[in-house]
Formats: sequence, C-alpha cells, structure tokens
Amino acid sequence: MTKILPKILERRVAAKGNIFTIEQADLEFSNGIKRTHEYVRTRGDAAVLAVPVLNQDTLLLIREYSVGVERYELGFPKGIMEPGEDPCEAANREMMEEVGFGARKLTYMKLMTAIPGYMKSRMHCVLAQDLYPEKQEGDEPEPLEVVEWPIAKIDTLLEREDFTEGRCIAALFLALEFLKNHG
Amino acid sequence: MTKILPKILERRVAAKGNIFTIEQADLEFSNGIKRTHEYVRTRGDAAVLAVPVLNQDTLLLIREYSVGVERYELGFPKGIMEPGEDPCEAANREMMEEVGFGARKLTYMKLMTAIPGYMKSRMHCVLAQDLYPEKQEGDEPEPLEVVEWPIAKIDTLLEREDFTEGRCIAALFLALEFLKNHG
Repeated sequence: MTKILPKILERRVAAKGNIFTIEQADLEFSNGIKRTHEYVRTRGDAAVLAVPVLNQDTLLLIREYSVGVERYELGFPKGIMEPGEDPCEAANREMMEEVGFGARKLTYMKLMTAIPGYMKSRMHCVLAQDLYPEKQEGDEPEPLEVVEWPIAKIDTLLEREDFTEGRCIAALFLALEFLKNHG
Repeated sequence: MTKILPKILERRVAAKGNIFTIEQADLEFSNGIKRTHEYVRTRGDAAVLAVPVLNQDTLLLIREYSVGVERYELGFPKGIMEPGEDPCEAANREMMEEVGFGARKLTYMKLMTAIPGYMKSRMHCVLAQDLYPEKQEGDEPEPLEVVEWPIAKIDTLLEREDFTEGRCIAALFLALEFLKNHG
C-alpha cells in the first residue's frame, strides 16, 4: 500500500553543535493536520558496521568507551564512510583500524537506521570473513580492546548489560543467519 | 576485565532544540589523552518498544511516517515512558495507543540503546502476548496503519527497504528466539 507522504512546508536549523545539528521540519499530513517534527543530523549521515568472523567458532568484538551511556560497551567495529569508499571498503578499513584485521570476503547484509523517526543516519552492515592481520591507524583516543567471542556462547553475550546497541544486536543475528545458511 | 573509565573533566550544553539537546563532555582517558566528545540528550531518555504477538503465526507492525528518513517506515509500537510507569505498563499503553490492542502477558526481553557512543537514550524491549482489543488515544498526527505480518514470512520483512531500524530488527529476532524456546 502506497501512502501519501506529508508535505514538508519548511525546514530549518534549530541549533548546531560541532558534529550534530538539530533541525525542524513543518509537516502537513495528507489529512491536513500540521505538525513540527524535530530531528538530528550528523556529519555524513552514512556509516558502516562490520561483523568480523575470525573462524567458524568465533566472532570479534571491540570494547569501547561510549560517552552517551558513560561506560565501556561491547560492539562491532564501525565508523563514518569516507568520500569515494563503498560500504564494503569502508567496513574493511574500520576493521583494520579498530580490530587489526582485514577481510578477503566481505558480504553486504543490510542498510540499517538507528532512530529513523529522529535521525537521517544510515548504517551499512557488512559481514567480514577470511580475515588476515592488518593494522591501520585510526583516530581512537586509546587502543580498543578486541574481544574474541565464541559463537556457541551468543546467549551469554545477549544477556550482558554492556552489549545493548540495537544495530549491533541486529547485525549479530543477521550474521548468524547468514553463517547458518551459507556456512 | 574492568576498564578504568575516562574522567569527565567538564560537561556543558552546546545547543538546545525543543526536544533534543547537544552536550559536550571533556574526557581524560586513563592513558592521559584528552578528547571532547559530543552527544545528544533527549526528553526522558527512557523509552519502550513492544513486539505484539497476535497469534502463533502473526506479529503486528505499524507503518509510521519517519521524518529522519522522509518515508513511511515499518516498525514496532514504541514511545517514551511516562512518570510512574514500569517498562511493561508503558509498552502496553503504547500498544493500546498505536495498534489498538492490550496484552495479558508481557515479558521483559532486553534493555537496548540506539547509539550508545552518542546518545544516553535507552529502550526497554517487551514481548506482548495474549492480546485483546483496547484502543487508547495517542498523540499521532494521523491514525497509524497496523500491519499483520506472518511469522513464516520474516525473511521478506528483513529484505524490505522500509524495515531498517536496528532496535526493531533486534527486537524481532529476540522475540522469535523467545517464541521458539517458550512457545
């Protein structure tokens, strides 16, 4: 079923930080009702996430300080796409920077959003297999801790209070489905 | 392994919209390196998401306009927790408002984050079973379209370009795992 998109009557910048911008859009829905919706833009708006498969039994995670929740959080390597990169190239670079591995096999899985009602931000999710050691310098303030996680213990990972990012949990399940179906 | 948290030397509001606030924190990592991290706060910072199970073969989704991505997006009912509510109560209310059903059985699944590196925002994810019709008025600008989705066709849902929210995909997989294990 095709729905009629609301008309965007006006769009304006409400406030600006260094990397985030708060914008507002005046919308008119197809039933005539008008609303102002506020949302957040960020640099680039396009990011990548890699699920690194070390071997058939083991995934790689990183442990990184997350100021939003003020703790170290487990997750997958990710970052902003750079000009000229395609999603698989960008995912491979982020993996080299953050976990010290490149991948000979990169499989595009899914374009995800974080908060589509309030952010434009999109993240390409890539499965990385057939890894080889390769370290590139990133811009992290401290070396990221790389954690080997046994696929047999995914339930324990899901129960942890420091593995919470929706896109990481989603990418984990998508990767496991892919590995189950394609080996 | 316990990691030493960075010291938060200073924290300030950089810019304010109506519902979002951009904040900056000056951090000193345990290796002495200092960085300023920018992040986004929002009203409440605590939200809920419900996965409504209509019957053993069918989940309920909503189709809602998402200004961040400027399209109608499929997802699960969700919203901000109100004062005094626990996560299951809030999930049940959001479900009544957005899909027109209450649930006799609510199971807490997981606390998720959207972008823990850049937002404090947390979302409690709840499985809703044993549904009964019950409509409460919400504050939506137009009635939300409710979509019955067959569990047998989840692969098709995951391939869609309008079902992209990481937390919704994660909640879907967590719900399917729960249903597989607990019936």
